[in-house]
Amino acid sequence: MRIVCQKSELLKSVNIVSKAVAVKSPVYILEGILISAEGDNLVLYGSDDTLSIRNTAKAVVLEEGRIVLPARLLGEILAKFDDCELSMYIQENNVVLECGHSKTVLCYMDAENYPEFPEYDAGNAIRMFSKDVISMIDQTVFATSVSEDKPILTGILVEIEEKSTRMVALDGYRLAVREEAVESSIEHKEVIVPSKSMREAARILPPDESDVRLMFGDRMMSIVCGDTQINTRVLQGDYIKYKNIIPDSFQTRFIVDRMELYSSLDRASILARQTKTNVVNMSIDGEVMTITSNSEVGRAREELPVNLTGKNLDISFNSRYLLDVLKEVEDDEIVFDMNTAISPCVIRPVSGGSYLYMVLPVKTNNAV
Amino acid sequence: MRIVCQKSELLKSVNIVSKAVAVKSPVYILEGILISAEGDNLVLYGSDDTLSIRNTAKAVVLEEGRIVLPARLLGEILAKFDDCELSMYIQENNVVLECGHSKTVLCYMDAENYPEFPEYDAGNAIRMFSKDVISMIDQTVFATSVSEDKPILTGILVEIEEKSTRMVALDGYRLAVREEAVESSIEHKEVIVPSKSMREAARILPPDESDVRLMFGDRMMSIVCGDTQINTRVLQGDYIKYKNIIPDSFQTRFIVDRMELYSSLDRASILARQTKTNVVNMSIDGEVMTITSNSEVGRAREELPVNLTGKNLDISFNSRYLLDVLKEVEDDEIVFDMNTAISPCVIRPVSGGSYLYMVLPVKTNNAV
Repeated sequence: MRIVCQKSELLKSVNIVSKAVAVKSPVYILEGILISAEGDNLVLYGSDDTLSIRNTAKAVVLEEGRIVLPARLLGEILAKFDDCELSMYIQENNVVLECGHSKTVLCYMDAENYPEFPEYDAGNAIRMFSKDVISMIDQTVFATSVSEDKPILTGILVEIEEKSTRMVALDGYRLAVREEAVESSIEHKEVIVPSKSMREAARILPPDESDVRLMFGDRMMSIVCGDTQINTRVLQGDYIKYKNIIPDSFQTRFIVDRMELYSSLDRASILARQTKTNVVNMSIDGEVMTITSNSEVGRAREELPVNLTGKNLDISFNSRYLLDVLKEVEDDEIVFDMNTAISPCVIRPVSGGSYLYMVLPVKTNNAV
Repeated sequence: MRIVCQKSELLKSVNIVSKAVAVKSPVYILEGILISAEGDNLVLYGSDDTLSIRNTAKAVVLEEGRIVLPARLLGEILAKFDDCELSMYIQENNVVLECGHSKTVLCYMDAENYPEFPEYDAGNAIRMFSKDVISMIDQTVFATSVSEDKPILTGILVEIEEKSTRMVALDGYRLAVREEAVESSIEHKEVIVPSKSMREAARILPPDESDVRLMFGDRMMSIVCGDTQINTRVLQGDYIKYKNIIPDSFQTRFIVDRMELYSSLDRASILARQTKTNVVNMSIDGEVMTITSNSEVGRAREELPVNLTGKNLDISFNSRYLLDVLKEVEDDEIVFDMNTAISPCVIRPVSGGSYLYMVLPVKTNNAV
């Protein structure tokens, strides 16, 4: 192997594929990334047992070859090189990185021992804007379960239909459903993708209108954008029939300013957090919502205007479950739909139906 | 107590005095700050066993009074209030904080149980610009010892003479001495100030030409700037006679660009760090310095120009001890003075004598 490339170009690729590489692995080669000099490109792979990422960097390839280098160390070295034209070549069983008056010699590992990058037929693809994929992930991933009790709930359900694609997450206390209108040739497809893979994808994808393809293979899903391919294992099992648990009629509906509610809850939750339970009470009475929290060290009270239709209501929530969703909704105003202090509350942006969040209240002594 | 003040004004004071308050203390009241409404001011104190800080916030005092509130909780609550006019008053054995439609009620503690703020005669004061005090601390504090083997070395020696003030730190491997020309009526005074107190002072003082007074009491030093007073306990014992250990003649002297050397060492130290010893070798040969580092996973080599007077030299250092000082010197060029690979190396800014750093080399197999 002997190549010349811009340091910044190689560093960008290393940073992308490193997101799939474990910081510490009992198998040392899995702390590495595979670098393959082929044609006019450097192709880089990173991989762990859930996720594989491939990215391509432009390079002048003077001699083809494949090596594995430790991901963190390589990233750190490249980041500290001046922005320069970088030479990389094999010499005496080591790889040499040369950049101006800096020269680093590294031991490399044999590419034969690195996991294969999974390739498969791209027949079953759907296409979306990159920013929409990111938004779908961001608006659902926080509601995935962090407990391994029901492993299926640690993933995001991706539901493909002919006219729409949905992402769904639920953890037993709340449910987030985000839909996009997407034309596809797939009649119906469901996969459950580990939240870790989705989070990394949202970090790697550009927040713009780049073309992204989602492709489905045997026990795998791929997200392809430009010269980056993200492959992830999918979780095996049946997802919960979430549609049955969303109520369709409500006795209390109010519209509230999202940021105003966020700030009020954020303040009330300082004292709620002192109790570990994080409970805040919302009392909706006519056009005023009063939020209160209590703890041994003190209590907080916030008042804000709401636009109410239907009955007054006293209800309590884990404040984190509300703050999480208020952070991710994009509209300025949101709609709360509720029935009683012990039945689920549904939250939607005023603009309508592409996003739905449902959260269970906390039963307190006041609740009936 | 009943006061009205700008929230931002109170928050600024809380943040300053909180730097003296322990996050966790076995005595709960020591996690608090004392707030005293007196005259036209709120006077705030924070205190631990080493450090006490007092600051004053403007307020309209409608009723005088003294209370103690938990520092972190109060800081967090104030930070999340909108920027507003804040009312604070006692009601039913609690303190109420009111700001717009937000109201927080907190339990307070009795001010009688809070430590007294140490007051003493300000006769023995020296005066300096705030930015110079910060710079003296920053250029020495990193060389204080982190080990409690010799407690005296965990502090900075402050040496006052009629025409100059010096700060000195050493940890057995390196020595930093920073001098400022300061006229004082004190003939000779030495105190050793805990590094923690000095670090907090450098964070609190404004980086400008504000007037700062250093004052010396019985086992105490005060740093006073505007409406902030920082009192610190001083360490008891005799400091090492550091002047005797600085060599005064050298066989090798070179001048080098500070940032160029910093970048080269920073890169070489990535591999040096893999060995835990952090050792980099410097080989000065004519007008070229070659820096090398070695580890199991690879090696680095850097070349940079130097302006040499005297003999060539091969010498090794803990790279961190060099990076630390290169970060803090302000000049673009620095002077290295050395004799042999096993004798101390002295580093100074090209502009001269107000700063001196001495570091011991690392003995390697090559060293003679």
